[in-house]
Amino acid sequence: MDLPDYADVAAAVTRIAPFARRTPLLSSPRLDAMMGGRLLIKAEPLQVTGSFKYRRATNAVQMLADDVTTVVAWSSGNHAQAVACAARTRGIKAIIVMPEDAPEAKKQGTTELGGEVVTYNRYTESREEIGAALAERHKATVIPPFDYLPVIAGQGTIGVEMAEQLRDENITPDQVICCTGGGGLLAGLCLGLHESFPDVPIYGAEPEGFDDFAQSLAAGERQACAPEARSICDAIVTPMPGKMTFPINKEHVTGGLVVSDDDALMAMALAWQHLKLVVEPGGAVALAAALTGKIDITGKTTVVVASGGNVDQPMFERALKML
Amino acid sequence: MDLPDYADVAAAVTRIAPFARRTPLLSSPRLDAMMGGRLLIKAEPLQVTGSFKYRRATNAVQMLADDVTTVVAWSSGNHAQAVACAARTRGIKAIIVMPEDAPEAKKQGTTELGGEVVTYNRYTESREEIGAALAERHKATVIPPFDYLPVIAGQGTIGVEMAEQLRDENITPDQVICCTGGGGLLAGLCLGLHESFPDVPIYGAEPEGFDDFAQSLAAGERQACAPEARSICDAIVTPMPGKMTFPINKEHVTGGLVVSDDDALMAMALAWQHLKLVVEPGGAVALAAALTGKIDITGKTTVVVASGGNVDQPMFERALKML
Repeated sequence: MDLPDYADVAAAVTRIAPFARRTPLLSSPRLDAMMGGRLLIKAEPLQVTGSFKYRRATNAVQMLADDVTTVVAWSSGNHAQAVACAARTRGIKAIIVMPEDAPEAKKQGTTELGGEVVTYNRYTESREEIGAALAERHKATVIPPFDYLPVIAGQGTIGVEMAEQLRDENITPDQVICCTGGGGLLAGLCLGLHESFPDVPIYGAEPEGFDDFAQSLAAGERQACAPEARSICDAIVTPMPGKMTFPINKEHVTGGLVVSDDDALMAMALAWQHLKLVVEPGGAVALAAALTGKIDITGKTTVVVASGGNVDQPMFERALKML
Repeated sequence: MDLPDYADVAAAVTRIAPFARRTPLLSSPRLDAMMGGRLLIKAEPLQVTGSFKYRRATNAVQMLADDVTTVVAWSSGNHAQAVACAARTRGIKAIIVMPEDAPEAKKQGTTELGGEVVTYNRYTESREEIGAALAERHKATVIPPFDYLPVIAGQGTIGVEMAEQLRDENITPDQVICCTGGGGLLAGLCLGLHESFPDVPIYGAEPEGFDDFAQSLAAGERQACAPEARSICDAIVTPMPGKMTFPINKEHVTGGLVVSDDDALMAMALAWQHLKLVVEPGGAVALAAALTGKIDITGKTTVVVASGGNVDQPMFERALKML
């Protein structure tokens, strides 16, 4: 298996530049004063389609051969919207396999962006099998959400961008925290950021019950989480680190941090209050790890990735109640 | 009375660059599809202290003589936080006169940023008189919220930045909409933007009951709104256009648009849903004018200023209920 490297990421930076947004590194003087440390938040909810996944979808779609007319993807929602939107820029049809319990906002967003949504039961059916069958029937190309080189390289663009933004402001961070599900964003970030800041410790953050990455890192090999686990962090409730992402993350990542659903909700509330940014539960776990003491941030400069903002209204109101 | 011109704005751009943030011009493919026109949103809630007012506060504070130890400002909240934060960067004490019914988030924010808050009754007392008395007692310099050259020039930086961002993306907008209270942001925007895009129509947007600018523009001279008017758009419920701002706006602005409180709440909800941006009621009136048909946006490129995001939780929940 060919692993992506920095050259793949650098090529993706050029490829997605006309389509994706350079998201800001946000900060809040009040939040910093409250926490006793400097926090910089890479605001991917402001990315096109509301999450970092537009980076990888755009890279993957732009790399397709000219004769591809249909793509198939499976996703809890953010990859879905991203692939639908990226496919539209090339006039390609997108069929998206989504869990039936995915947030309505994500299903609706995918449809409005021209995607055709097919639902499945997250706990009893295999999205990979459904996706493969659809791809065969429609002579379509599958765009997997992880363990796929164009996807990892595409999300590595976030690391290159972060490095540029830090250099522009003459900042050397003490540590970086990024959420992880399948591990693709984290792996991309590692490739993109460690090229410029080879010594900065990078941590992966996960929801309780889905700490397969932390366990895998501790064990030195891929571990699966318990199938009965549940979390509100729908974007990153994957069962196991990816085959392609884990070797990269094992080499680059210093440690795994685990947060509760309430930690994620509190981080969403504080992002609303201090950063004026809408973050979804799964997108808030890295910020949650920093804000709830899962890692020492006192007197340090900590960069966290807020990975997406596609959240339903009842869940967001639940987060605001944490204040 | 010396009116500010483009040279004052250009000087402010250099002066505030080390302190203020270059806020993004956001957009949403879904929102554009829904509205049948292209919307670009200048996202000032992402500015330091959550509103554009940090631009002007920084410009004014950086222009102070070295022997100034204390400043006094009056504000419904955003100017307060901005002045407190800007003063802190120079080690200057800030005393802020705020209405007793200002949102808690704004009062608390001002205190946390080191400001000393003095409250007054918005409907029976004069903040100008209270501010002047405090300034005399503390040998302090007043930083007025409008009709003050450094303030208008400072917020003109938003127009210069917007022009640069539009040029970078090869976009010539069909129209620009900006909220107006005292008229200072609008006047600054006109000076900054019309230098590069002299022909683009610029509109002012206001809440119902506080449409003093629209009335003044129609009458050709400054008109006051009825003293019994009330609106949830606390940031821009000023009684009358400024003496210094109105001559500038009269020359540059094409027309005034008026929105209801419900229009503003709906715009807040759609900004949450599609832009992942937290906007306060007064900061949402320009977006509200565009989204609720107060001006034709079909097939056009419309730039709107979202001016601030400092809103209390109950008001934000009220907005989310509009969806």
